[in-house]
Amino acid sequence: MTSAHRSAYLLERAWVDGAVLDDVLVEIEDGRFTAVTPGTSRPDDKASSSQREFHRPADETHRLPGLTLPGLANCHSHAFHRALRGRTQRERGTFWTWREQMYGVAGRLDPDSYFELARATYREMAAAGITSVGEFHYLHHQPDGTPYDDPNAMGHALVAAAGDAGIRIGLLDTCYLSSGFGRPPEGAQVRYSDGDAVRWAERVAGLEAEPHAAIGAAIHSVRAVPRDQLTTVVEAAGGGPLHVHLSEQVAENDACLATYGATPTQLLHDAGALGPRTSAVHATHLTGADITHLGSTRTRACFCPTTERDLGDGIGPGRALAAAGAVLTLGSDSHAVIDLLEEMRALELDERLATQQRGHWTAAELLAAGTAHESVGFADAGVIAVGRRADLVTLDTTSTRTAGTGADEATAVFAAGAADVTHVVADGRVIATRDDHEDIGRELAAAIERVHR
Amino acid sequence: MTSAHRSAYLLERAWVDGAVLDDVLVEIEDGRFTAVTPGTSRPDDKASSSQREFHRPADETHRLPGLTLPGLANCHSHAFHRALRGRTQRERGTFWTWREQMYGVAGRLDPDSYFELARATYREMAAAGITSVGEFHYLHHQPDGTPYDDPNAMGHALVAAAGDAGIRIGLLDTCYLSSGFGRPPEGAQVRYSDGDAVRWAERVAGLEAEPHAAIGAAIHSVRAVPRDQLTTVVEAAGGGPLHVHLSEQVAENDACLATYGATPTQLLHDAGALGPRTSAVHATHLTGADITHLGSTRTRACFCPTTERDLGDGIGPGRALAAAGAVLTLGSDSHAVIDLLEEMRALELDERLATQQRGHWTAAELLAAGTAHESVGFADAGVIAVGRRADLVTLDTTSTRTAGTGADEATAVFAAGAADVTHVVADGRVIATRDDHEDIGRELAAAIERVHR
Repeated sequence: MTSAHRSAYLLERAWVDGAVLDDVLVEIEDGRFTAVTPGTSRPDDKASSSQREFHRPADETHRLPGLTLPGLANCHSHAFHRALRGRTQRERGTFWTWREQMYGVAGRLDPDSYFELARATYREMAAAGITSVGEFHYLHHQPDGTPYDDPNAMGHALVAAAGDAGIRIGLLDTCYLSSGFGRPPEGAQVRYSDGDAVRWAERVAGLEAEPHAAIGAAIHSVRAVPRDQLTTVVEAAGGGPLHVHLSEQVAENDACLATYGATPTQLLHDAGALGPRTSAVHATHLTGADITHLGSTRTRACFCPTTERDLGDGIGPGRALAAAGAVLTLGSDSHAVIDLLEEMRALELDERLATQQRGHWTAAELLAAGTAHESVGFADAGVIAVGRRADLVTLDTTSTRTAGTGADEATAVFAAGAADVTHVVADGRVIATRDDHEDIGRELAAAIERVHR
Repeated sequence: MTSAHRSAYLLERAWVDGAVLDDVLVEIEDGRFTAVTPGTSRPDDKASSSQREFHRPADETHRLPGLTLPGLANCHSHAFHRALRGRTQRERGTFWTWREQMYGVAGRLDPDSYFELARATYREMAAAGITSVGEFHYLHHQPDGTPYDDPNAMGHALVAAAGDAGIRIGLLDTCYLSSGFGRPPEGAQVRYSDGDAVRWAERVAGLEAEPHAAIGAAIHSVRAVPRDQLTTVVEAAGGGPLHVHLSEQVAENDACLATYGATPTQLLHDAGALGPRTSAVHATHLTGADITHLGSTRTRACFCPTTERDLGDGIGPGRALAAAGAVLTLGSDSHAVIDLLEEMRALELDERLATQQRGHWTAAELLAAGTAHESVGFADAGVIAVGRRADLVTLDTTSTRTAGTGADEATAVFAAGAADVTHVVADGRVIATRDDHEDIGRELAAAIERVHR
């Protein structure tokens, strides 16, 4: 990566102010946009446009052919799940049998291998146009539960991995205290637990924000954090991001109702855990009252459609949540796929499957869901506008997938995929081009082989 | 494309005899495999493997790194729908409102523009590893219904387009006689109709098979072919492929029941239209009796999952059909996406969404569904084996998407996409490599622009 104090790009087309505009000149200084000027046509550039030149930025203006979007935000990630892609598909089963395989990998990681795997995964994200990741992190301690010498060694590994990959990270340090309702942690889970929420909060207090890293909190789920511990986590989160897995599985809802006589949403509502800084991840199996609670509190609902397909979670009530006031965000979660463009269209397409109607979300709304950087701690990203963090994700509008589709926002959301991302800038620096893909593949293969060895 | 009388490839890994084998030497003569020999390792080739060289075949042996599959079969295509990708997503609506937009394009095509659009679309298919397409063709006549001088001018355009693209075509010439139950053709539909099934059969009799083209028949749907005309189509199809759109929409089922007192499946069953040569396309909204009919007759069910998502059709009972005896095949239909690997996994993933269980289909079963060449008239393709048509589709197992996933059949079906297809051979000839993508994109853009001009 180059360090670009000042740089400028002439974007053939770009998503600016809720529309696709032509010939947008963006100027960048110290990682932020200092000028965004549409209609800056340079006739003598027409020739070079067809040559598809993607330069590293320097002090001159670089032309980026194609359609440029703001940086994408992957609001729910478990980086280490990337080691499972393609490897959990042999057996019949459910979410719960998949989880056993996932725990096998979770039990074997240490700070070094976690760093390597996360760095490779974050580089795959960078190449797919993701400039912020929300990492839902619960692999805190050694496999037997003993803290590392640096009790945040694993979290620091993730922050360093994101820095190396050139993306920003919202480190959502996750409180995980119980295996199920009233059951102590078991197996791989012992390394997730700090014992109680107070000790979790003490450890998390040792984490510090960096220019590329925001620190947030997470409640793993109402299974993993007993009701009497919830308030401690909510208070420790302060004004920062607070994430929580919510009602991904019917079995969790049933157990929660049996234990507390309340749905998971009701439990979180009663603990003061809902609100605009909170992201409820999945939010798949909800009652009407749950939807009302999430909507009236302006809670974010982070859908992870490709994972929800892979794990057979079901199709959540996305449009109903939005109608009630909730704000939709997106994540690649288990990384069966890392492609926020596919997550965007999957939000729409799965709602079509559920309703037999088309057109639930406009492309603009889906782009907003795919650029929700504020939900992972970066409110100053996600828009190509003066003063904002200078992220640019350029799509090839001439590929076999995108050719002839209009090169507008529908092309981005309904035709393009991660394979069409040609050039990615985060905080003013080039973090990925197509030339990097081969190297990223090698790094992924090495990091994953190490985990399975 | 080169003409390769004899050629040979050493495949790093290949799907042969229902397993992924290493170092498979395949020899090809006159478009067919003459030898398939696993375990043919050549230690001095290791260096060139890492260089990822993809040669055009000649008389020496070429090493293909990655995972090689048989050619993929796209069993349901409307080539001209490719012009709609990304362009029908702005409005709310249903299948029926989408159809109005589709008719707009259908009304404007002539044999020249149809040829150009189909050739570009088939080249996109070739680059995605598709070596046979089943083209469900009903744009027969001039826009006012008058036959062209060559009454099969439009069908001949498709056959020529496939030949130019290097893929095989099962031309499923489609009988389309009525707009709805008891209503004459209207608008764009007038160019679809031959008046009655006898005149349809007379026209189709003028089509001749070619080495790369099989001629089959199709009943558009029970909406478009009155009950008393069905038998004529079935008889004209003879022993060849017979395809039919079946129960894609609940509204069609309702109208059929109201008109005939029978479901579409029952109607087709009573007309003798079901059986192993028949492909029921979509088969989404079925009764238990429908499933029994389709299964007991060993009818093929051609699912088109990415289109069924796009059009909000719903999720068909794939596993129940297979359990009853039906054979699943796959198609990209409206070409919102052209990626048979995605169709394969979508068959599994959408069944997961419907059932909240995982593991309905093995990767081997999904690969079988994606290589059902026999259903479009090419029973001698779809397997890497001596005597079969020499099709080879090679996937990059080191990409950002596929790295670390095991390079086995699960990689193909659950991790790879069309963007990972590096090298495609059909009938012994190289029809696409990654180097062709830019040219294909240009051809698609030009053909689609012509249609929308």
